[in-house]
Amino acid sequence: MAAASSPAAAITCRAAVAWAPGQALVMEEVEVAPPEAMEIRVKVVSTSICRSDVTQWQSTAQTDLFPRIFGHEASGVVESVGEGVTEFEVGDHVLTVFIGECMSCKHCVSGKSNMCQKLGLERRGVMHSDQKTRFSLRGKPVYHYCAVSSFSEYTVVHSGCAVKVGPTVPMDRICLLSCGVSAGLGAAWKVADISKGSSVVIFGLGTVGLSVAQGAKLRGASIIIGVDTNPEKQEKGKAFGVTDFINPEELNEPVQQVVKRLTNGGADYSFECVGDTGVVSTALQSCSDGWGLTVTLGVPKAKPEVSAHYALLLSGRTLKGSLFGGWRPKSDLPLLVDKYANKEIQVDDLVTHDLSFDYINKALELMLENKCLRCVIHMPQ
Amino acid sequence: MAAASSPAAAITCRAAVAWAPGQALVMEEVEVAPPEAMEIRVKVVSTSICRSDVTQWQSTAQTDLFPRIFGHEASGVVESVGEGVTEFEVGDHVLTVFIGECMSCKHCVSGKSNMCQKLGLERRGVMHSDQKTRFSLRGKPVYHYCAVSSFSEYTVVHSGCAVKVGPTVPMDRICLLSCGVSAGLGAAWKVADISKGSSVVIFGLGTVGLSVAQGAKLRGASIIIGVDTNPEKQEKGKAFGVTDFINPEELNEPVQQVVKRLTNGGADYSFECVGDTGVVSTALQSCSDGWGLTVTLGVPKAKPEVSAHYALLLSGRTLKGSLFGGWRPKSDLPLLVDKYANKEIQVDDLVTHDLSFDYINKALELMLENKCLRCVIHMPQ
Repeated sequence: MAAASSPAAAITCRAAVAWAPGQALVMEEVEVAPPEAMEIRVKVVSTSICRSDVTQWQSTAQTDLFPRIFGHEASGVVESVGEGVTEFEVGDHVLTVFIGECMSCKHCVSGKSNMCQKLGLERRGVMHSDQKTRFSLRGKPVYHYCAVSSFSEYTVVHSGCAVKVGPTVPMDRICLLSCGVSAGLGAAWKVADISKGSSVVIFGLGTVGLSVAQGAKLRGASIIIGVDTNPEKQEKGKAFGVTDFINPEELNEPVQQVVKRLTNGGADYSFECVGDTGVVSTALQSCSDGWGLTVTLGVPKAKPEVSAHYALLLSGRTLKGSLFGGWRPKSDLPLLVDKYANKEIQVDDLVTHDLSFDYINKALELMLENKCLRCVIHMPQ
Repeated sequence: MAAASSPAAAITCRAAVAWAPGQALVMEEVEVAPPEAMEIRVKVVSTSICRSDVTQWQSTAQTDLFPRIFGHEASGVVESVGEGVTEFEVGDHVLTVFIGECMSCKHCVSGKSNMCQKLGLERRGVMHSDQKTRFSLRGKPVYHYCAVSSFSEYTVVHSGCAVKVGPTVPMDRICLLSCGVSAGLGAAWKVADISKGSSVVIFGLGTVGLSVAQGAKLRGASIIIGVDTNPEKQEKGKAFGVTDFINPEELNEPVQQVVKRLTNGGADYSFECVGDTGVVSTALQSCSDGWGLTVTLGVPKAKPEVSAHYALLLSGRTLKGSLFGGWRPKSDLPLLVDKYANKEIQVDDLVTHDLSFDYINKALELMLENKCLRCVIHMPQ
């Protein structure tokens, strides 16, 4: 039953609405419906911008899903709860998550998968429960993104797509744990399970790649090679544990040859964090035969087919994919928040820009121009 | 030092020589040099024919490696030993292996790889130690295959490419453990590590695929789906543990849909044993997201590039390759021989034909016409 304190009325608030692929977001007054059963309405406090928001905003593959509200890496405060919600109360601090955990499907129960069958990755711009939107503008529906849509002062998410956090952790930093930082740490710890003394190569030193580096360093990897075409990433990489930096554009030989030299035959682990399926093959080639593991994390902007010569696999390599670092949000994310609170993991240094909600288009530009790692958007409070 | 009993002279014997790709083998009197340091000369007792012998014999990719002696799945008796060999004595029963184990390189020492850096897969038709051949015909070199060349009454192999077996195990059956049966069992046990109650789908029910099925059954898999275009494999599959048979040519829908139905969403493990890179993608699609593992074993006859949609990986699937089932020959093969001797694994039923050496071309024909699983060639004794 709905808590007595939960107002059931619609809210009118500001949201940054995308009207068409790649067109500047427009601040609009939208109506946010009250949460349905098992949903919560959240007053967004901070939302950082992930590369996938930008990719999807620019994509012309789903033009029928506009107008749309992007954003999924966010923190906020529960404003009201829908019928049946017992996990959250009004005033709770939460992180939103783009894949939920229903705790009851075959995958959630298995304990070995974060591919929740009920609250998995939502691609149609609607809510999981009824395939409808909770946003409207002049009476017309506005579509969601990943069932989160945090580029709005208020949003509605399924209670399975939110994780409670303590009231003292800084909301404007932990939002990065909603996606990018967790994805990288999970790839290093949960998916690859990097071992002490091992060698690692990371393709792409964005927030995800740097978080892989951090994860590798904390596991005691001896060699952590960062590969990026942006020379500025050399210094940034060092701060996150990168021991050797390779800029492919400054080489006269294939990257994998340099990696093989640095690692005496091939890295124990390689990570594709660029979002380029062509790099997956290079990542496999950079791995040691016999036991090399390549983890592919990136969502490609083009060419969705991964390809590799069969002999790379036959000689003992493994290729593994990872979404959200393999973490189950409710079961695993609180641990990462604790680690941040205890200063065991580094998040703050990934925030290169802080902007108020009014400047969200500026934030998108920074991302497009590769001038930022994470820009945190501060919502009006 | 060479044992006192080892003759150091060349031997003249009969060998089935391939003179050109795909042309019938010709029985020739060849000269087999004495074993060099760390090598042994073996009197071949039995050799079964593996699909890769046939593929390589037909291939026009390395025409400069003819004349050549194929064959690698073999058992025999040590006839003489080269300098420094202490592991073998004249009269020892051995299995030959196409990838050796030097026990000292980075990979052998790691304990987690069978990609020996010294005695790995030999593709140039010569011996590992000096890059020369031990066979000659009218004074001209005859090339080896996989550093084994068992289609000859006598052959020379590196001592690291042979495994000692007890004197009582039947030589004309255990030769199958040199490659095909071990490759399948290893893929099931060592590479996939199939767990009790799980679901398995196997593409291609040749000797390797049937051995995967046997491995899955012995591990207690609940569902073992065999996929083959040859309807005769339905009965054969049952004998090795296959619970459900799919003939893709009799379907009106994609194989993966049927597999998903039979396994409630996708198999826990899938195996590509056809040697068709296109099937790898189907095998991935037949696997469960979240934790599905696809093992690719086959050496493709065409199109060496494996390709798959990135989303198959991102949603938690793993693609892993396996050569010789991941077994390290000296460390692991004796265990399989023991299991055969103790009737814990089934080998005999995979031998569909027995022929004497004189009929080796008939054996190749049976293989080409898909009329046999394994044909054992009995050498004159």
